[in-house]
Amino acid sequence: MTQQADFVVVLGGDGTFLAAARMFRERPTPILGVNFGALGFLTEVTLDEMEAHIDQALAGELVVHERMMLDGEFVPADGAPVRFSVLNEIVVSKTEEARVIELRIIVDGHSMTSMRGDGLIVCTPTGSTAYNLSAGGPIVLPGQNTIALTPICAHSLSFRPVVLPGAAEIEVDLVSAKKPVLITADGQAVTTFGMGGRLFIRQSPHKVHKLVSAERNYFMTLRDKLGWGRG
Amino acid sequence: MTQQADFVVVLGGDGTFLAAARMFRERPTPILGVNFGALGFLTEVTLDEMEAHIDQALAGELVVHERMMLDGEFVPADGAPVRFSVLNEIVVSKTEEARVIELRIIVDGHSMTSMRGDGLIVCTPTGSTAYNLSAGGPIVLPGQNTIALTPICAHSLSFRPVVLPGAAEIEVDLVSAKKPVLITADGQAVTTFGMGGRLFIRQSPHKVHKLVSAERNYFMTLRDKLGWGRG
Amino acid sequence: MTQQADFVVVLGGDGTFLAAARMFRERPTPILGVNFGALGFLTEVTLDEMEAHIDQALAGELVVHERMMLDGEFVPADGAPVRFSVLNEIVVSKTEEARVIELRIIVDGHSMTSMRGDGLIVCTPTGSTAYNLSAGGPIVLPGQNTIALTPICAHSLSFRPVVLPGAAEIEVDLVSAKKPVLITADGQAVTTFGMGGRLFIRQSPHKVHKLVSAERNYFMTLRDKLGWGRG
Amino acid sequence: MTQQADFVVVLGGDGTFLAAARMFRERPTPILGVNFGALGFLTEVTLDEMEAHIDQALAGELVVHERMMLDGEFVPADGAPVRFSVLNEIVVSKTEEARVIELRIIVDGHSMTSMRGDGLIVCTPTGSTAYNLSAGGPIVLPGQNTIALTPICAHSLSFRPVVLPGAAEIEVDLVSAKKPVLITADGQAVTTFGMGGRLFIRQSPHKVHKLVSAERNYFMTLRDKLGWGRG
Repeated sequence: MTQQADFVVVLGGDGTFLAAARMFRERPTPILGVNFGALGFLTEVTLDEMEAHIDQALAGELVVHERMMLDGEFVPADGAPVRFSVLNEIVVSKTEEARVIELRIIVDGHSMTSMRGDGLIVCTPTGSTAYNLSAGGPIVLPGQNTIALTPICAHSLSFRPVVLPGAAEIEVDLVSAKKPVLITADGQAVTTFGMGGRLFIRQSPHKVHKLVSAERNYFMTLRDKLGWGRG
Repeated sequence: MTQQADFVVVLGGDGTFLAAARMFRERPTPILGVNFGALGFLTEVTLDEMEAHIDQALAGELVVHERMMLDGEFVPADGAPVRFSVLNEIVVSKTEEARVIELRIIVDGHSMTSMRGDGLIVCTPTGSTAYNLSAGGPIVLPGQNTIALTPICAHSLSFRPVVLPGAAEIEVDLVSAKKPVLITADGQAVTTFGMGGRLFIRQSPHKVHKLVSAERNYFMTLRDKLGWGRG
Repeated sequence: MTQQADFVVVLGGDGTFLAAARMFRERPTPILGVNFGALGFLTEVTLDEMEAHIDQALAGELVVHERMMLDGEFVPADGAPVRFSVLNEIVVSKTEEARVIELRIIVDGHSMTSMRGDGLIVCTPTGSTAYNLSAGGPIVLPGQNTIALTPICAHSLSFRPVVLPGAAEIEVDLVSAKKPVLITADGQAVTTFGMGGRLFIRQSPHKVHKLVSAERNYFMTLRDKLGWGRG
Repeated sequence: MTQQADFVVVLGGDGTFLAAARMFRERPTPILGVNFGALGFLTEVTLDEMEAHIDQALAGELVVHERMMLDGEFVPADGAPVRFSVLNEIVVSKTEEARVIELRIIVDGHSMTSMRGDGLIVCTPTGSTAYNLSAGGPIVLPGQNTIALTPICAHSLSFRPVVLPGAAEIEVDLVSAKKPVLITADGQAVTTFGMGGRLFIRQSPHKVHKLVSAERNYFMTLRDKLGWGRG
């Protein structure tokens, strides 16, 4: 049935939108996000505005914005690889028992650095305003093909957020941790990550198609959500 | 004479390289940066390595990396526009007498935000590791067409570094300042900026062509300069 | 005449309060700050509330909070020393022409570090929510005898804000700058700082006496000014 | 036997010193920290220097520095309170399953703020250079009676590190979390924290007595550990 849909209306918060984005990632079905409560970065339409937006969507008056996704592949030391896709971010983080973890980051086959700390966020422009922002990462305007890489509570004060080209192939290896660490995809636990496992992250061939009003621009949402001064 | 050069060797620090980059920006002459003292982000070759690198350059064994530049155009309330190009960054900042300035930032015709603080940095990926990094901005891997916009000591804690697409057209207006503020291009004072003036920034049609050893990658320089842990 | 005042009412913004604080610093005259516009950290009373607060002050129902001040003494290579006092902060910063400055910081006779960047803020707890906060420094609850030392756009990513005991004796020397740098006291230019000059900063023997309503606590002001979530 | 010790030599890293500090907290036994590997903030003596330092300690030539501790008391909704002491920090943080937690922070009976994010660090000056620094908190010179309160990946960009007086009584309540959150004391898991529980933190009546060489000052350690430029 979803195969015949012209567009999909998601009712909920940004988390619901993320789940829908993953569900429809292999079919370019436009998604309209309607928020029940406070507006989100992905769900910018209120319940009151929903009907008018659906009319506009049916009339072809809404704009489709393409948003890049990331594909993750975790190859454990033993066992089958685990694959997953995200619209926001992939996070490698300590679990309750693993106090500090050390990761080696390899980009396009070149060793970038190793880091010690609580973890690492690898995010899309869409995800830049989510967990990435809380961890000190930059806001990346969506629509770009870039990947931001932001440490979580790095021990080294010199390891700062890095913006990589969308074509970068990222490998994350676990150098040391007393216990397995956690891989999270758009906020959902995917698997745990032990020594000898390798996590590969690259741009997905699929895009999310987000329906937006032609009158709305991204800066309005930024200002609303972050409380920025109006220009 | 410079019109016939196959490549240019810059002897000095990153500042000297920046000056050469602006001088040769309309002719795609590859530049090899040789550093006299501590290695720079742009001048990665030591005096000892210079001869071998020049041999490699003559033999066509060095790689040419294209680096985007920014064009600035300042249109004062009265008088002629001032135009300039940078490889690193354009900065609008308070002068000694102007204690706090307020700027309005407009991107592609949309009001982004207004900010109060010491100033604003608009930088290329190449410039991301210079003043931008000191002001809290992200490291942007060179080779990308993106522009980073980083506030200097913003009053609002919610105004964070923003990464824009390279095609973005940025306008900066001075909303209030007791005295004129300063426009700086790659660290050189260009002009002062009074009320009613408008600063436009966009990607330059010209690129800098940087000669690099095929064996060297950007992460080596990052690790050397920032003291990052080796992976 | 001011010698006989029971208390002083300051009408204006925080800047006006700072000027009054310096003017009355040698006489422990309590100061009530009334704000004309948006509430300040120092001027927490609105025009509407002014009359009631003056009545309360006359009835002895307001509380006096003591706030520490800093004394600065600049000893130039030649010429007479310059002395000044602040309630908020002393800033050493580059001028328009001085692009990067290098400072050596000495605490209680021990070399702490040298820093390169745009400048240095030395602030009281009262001043911690002013320029210090914009530069990335911590909020220090007033009433404590501590001094915060925060770099402005330091080149080194590892130089972070430092909180010193109130009894610390701080010396700042100019190691290098192409042009004299500026010393600012509570936002007012005091003098310029050339090579060979030395700036000494220590706690003042004088305190500012700030009149506050017993019903008001500092966290209310923090939440109002910073837009913090209410607990 | 420990009751008769003149001083204690701790062999290991900072973690070992922390364990010893908690063990001896009710007896003012001076502790000398000797490090096996890289020097720590608490263990500043190398194996090579150990013998000379022990001789100096026996000769009464080492200085005793008092370091404040924090006492934590967790009162669950049901069951017995849990009490613990730390030299570095108490952390409330999400567990693997609790994605975002919301905490209410109360200081001296006044609501300070509520925060959403990964957690909260409450640290002594000694602990300021440990986890606190990685999370963006300030360096607080030891010997002061202050408590730093630093959010971990706060959602709100305006919630910044706060330095409170040592006498502050801090209460942390869990406002919402899908699963219990974790309380950690000096890096050791203490208990989990469910809805209705309350965590109280105040200065300990006990101090740690740290033996240091009269020739060594704190800034040497800072420079060594953080790679600061020498003044």
